[in-house]
Amino acid sequence: MITTKNKLKDRIEELFALAPDCNGGANRPAFSKAEAEAMLLVAGWARAAGLEPAVDPFGNLWCLPPGDGPFVTSGSHVDTVPDGGRLDGSLGTVIAVEAAERVAGQRGILVCAAEEAARFGAGTLGSRSMTGNLSDTDLARMRDAEGRGALSVRSEYLNALERIPKLERAPLERVLAHVEVHIEQRADLRKHGLSLGIATTIAGPVRHRLRFIGEVAHAGETPAAERRDALCAAAEIVLLAEKLCQQYAPHTTATVGTLLIHPNSLTSIPGAAELGVDIRSVEPGGAKRLLDELLHGARRAAGSRGVTLADVPLSVSEPTVMDEAMVRAAESACGRLEVRCGRCVSFAGHDAQHIARTVPAALLFVASENGVSHAPGEAANWKDMEAALAVLVELMHSLQGGGNDGR
Amino acid sequence: MITTKNKLKDRIEELFALAPDCNGGANRPAFSKAEAEAMLLVAGWARAAGLEPAVDPFGNLWCLPPGDGPFVTSGSHVDTVPDGGRLDGSLGTVIAVEAAERVAGQRGILVCAAEEAARFGAGTLGSRSMTGNLSDTDLARMRDAEGRGALSVRSEYLNALERIPKLERAPLERVLAHVEVHIEQRADLRKHGLSLGIATTIAGPVRHRLRFIGEVAHAGETPAAERRDALCAAAEIVLLAEKLCQQYAPHTTATVGTLLIHPNSLTSIPGAAELGVDIRSVEPGGAKRLLDELLHGARRAAGSRGVTLADVPLSVSEPTVMDEAMVRAAESACGRLEVRCGRCVSFAGHDAQHIARTVPAALLFVASENGVSHAPGEAANWKDMEAALAVLVELMHSLQGGGNDGR
Repeated sequence: MITTKNKLKDRIEELFALAPDCNGGANRPAFSKAEAEAMLLVAGWARAAGLEPAVDPFGNLWCLPPGDGPFVTSGSHVDTVPDGGRLDGSLGTVIAVEAAERVAGQRGILVCAAEEAARFGAGTLGSRSMTGNLSDTDLARMRDAEGRGALSVRSEYLNALERIPKLERAPLERVLAHVEVHIEQRADLRKHGLSLGIATTIAGPVRHRLRFIGEVAHAGETPAAERRDALCAAAEIVLLAEKLCQQYAPHTTATVGTLLIHPNSLTSIPGAAELGVDIRSVEPGGAKRLLDELLHGARRAAGSRGVTLADVPLSVSEPTVMDEAMVRAAESACGRLEVRCGRCVSFAGHDAQHIARTVPAALLFVASENGVSHAPGEAANWKDMEAALAVLVELMHSLQGGGNDGR
Repeated sequence: MITTKNKLKDRIEELFALAPDCNGGANRPAFSKAEAEAMLLVAGWARAAGLEPAVDPFGNLWCLPPGDGPFVTSGSHVDTVPDGGRLDGSLGTVIAVEAAERVAGQRGILVCAAEEAARFGAGTLGSRSMTGNLSDTDLARMRDAEGRGALSVRSEYLNALERIPKLERAPLERVLAHVEVHIEQRADLRKHGLSLGIATTIAGPVRHRLRFIGEVAHAGETPAAERRDALCAAAEIVLLAEKLCQQYAPHTTATVGTLLIHPNSLTSIPGAAELGVDIRSVEPGGAKRLLDELLHGARRAAGSRGVTLADVPLSVSEPTVMDEAMVRAAESACGRLEVRCGRCVSFAGHDAQHIARTVPAALLFVASENGVSHAPGEAANWKDMEAALAVLVELMHSLQGGGNDGR
């Protein structure tokens, strides 16, 4: 007997098996062949559920109901960070497919492309492009570690999806409402005995690259007073980011996630160090305030060592306040099904926050067992996943009905 | 007309042209194809000068005079750090070839292999192996960034030298004395109006790898208090090494030259960070004292963040005091030729310090114009190089004579 649990689980494993990496995680980078293969897999499931798959010019997968009337959508993403988890993106996608099977009529699936675009120092490329918040020029400027531009990588990705019909544009005007289900990315819900969280605010990430240029010199023969060590300047910023993250808690975070040095040789003083910092806040202006303090420290750390600093903004954004009527509709659905839910915020960026600019959107979190995210250890309880599916089905029914239940 | 300057210069350029890298530096890593090609080039020059090239089991190139009597040698190395300079190793090698042409009789050339073995977190592999200070087991344990062992890479390198006859062992017992000429690696000699420096002590390097293991987690969703950030622990050690390098100056140095983090993703808290530290001292026990302070700090930096620390010793050594009679012989040669010289110490490791354990050896520095070392900007004055050549010729003559001039 195929239970819902097994069906969700099997599909999550099918997605994982496309590109497992050697450290036990999933490895489907933004706009990669592996992301395209995952999209093809979802398209096949959607077709079996009576929907018609199509790809918009931004690489997002739409699975449309027959006809050209309005419909409600659900979905998440299928790309991953390097060495990522099994559930991030995949869970919300397979739940959306299952909900589409169970909800009759005007419902569809929307799987956004390149949500985890860490390779380009960014995220949510598909949903931001679709909603007019990211231009092709912006994409062309984004480079991965190998120097490849996001725009040309997207072309290759679109070619890999040639079996799916193309849309001339994203049919957002037909969407009545959109719901994204996602694994929780910390461990708050379980602590409070809740199965589901309903996001009221999504943090706006601010990302910056800092490049310190000193001078490569001999590790033994260069006296302390004559060194221009780029790594030492960078290390000061790693620690300043850590300190600011503590000072600004709990509304704002800061993380140095990337650091590369040159020439990275044991007998040479590092002449260059480049780090990437990620700042997030659920308070308007919070991320910008932290960034200003960090840049002030970076200029001081560089200046005191005769090191130069180049700072490259990667992305700037403000927190998104989610549609209150959608939040209440989700609460009502949970209430009718006796699923324990609570309101929460999200520090992680999600496609739902960009879609929310054009379409009423909700973001629902399934309780995490351990708070692990963006790593192989991600875990959720199957009962909570099934509860999320039931709530999604209930919510899509009610949203199709024209906006009752508090909307 | 071929002047000495042009001949030295042309040969330095010939060595450089074997493997220039894209950043303007030389790139002939230890035991690489490029190092083998450089050895073949030197062997050809030596053959033209009437010497017989041969390779010992450790990869060192010997260019021997006819017969089986005693002889004096000179030489340096032909491998480089990544993005290295034109003169490091090359200058002492081409000067040795030229001296061998000018000094008749019992003189040879010794070019040691894998002096710049930064790829294996070590140095002077050829001279240490030859003098019994490094076993094949030690070599087999050394790995480069691609996981390749030094012993198997050496086998490939020896295969690339198959055109040169092989020696069953290094003929050290025939060597009366050895002189290594090298570009100065700081800018002290020029400041004091000197053309040549004669090393009295060579620092003993101590090298260590520190591996911090924390936990990969989501950059936005992991509260400050729950982070186990391996990069933050590593950054504290980068700054502690900088501070200790200032405190222990001028007799001891410390440098963090390598740092790699995992997963190195903008949206993930680094779960692992591995750094390499290089410590050098011209005082007995000095490097070890600094290392102890650094390791104490590393344990504290890790412990306060819930991060674990593994420390891997790469190499340990004490400073080498050079043969006083050889220092005086070099001073006499300079005196006779009216070349301005002075005594100095070396913080950089050199093959001469290992050869000095078995054979009377001297290390002569040619004044650097700018103090740049291990980088493309290395520069020396041609007059000083010609003076070094003249001193070397004079010194080899006197050393052949059975050890007069103060020996």
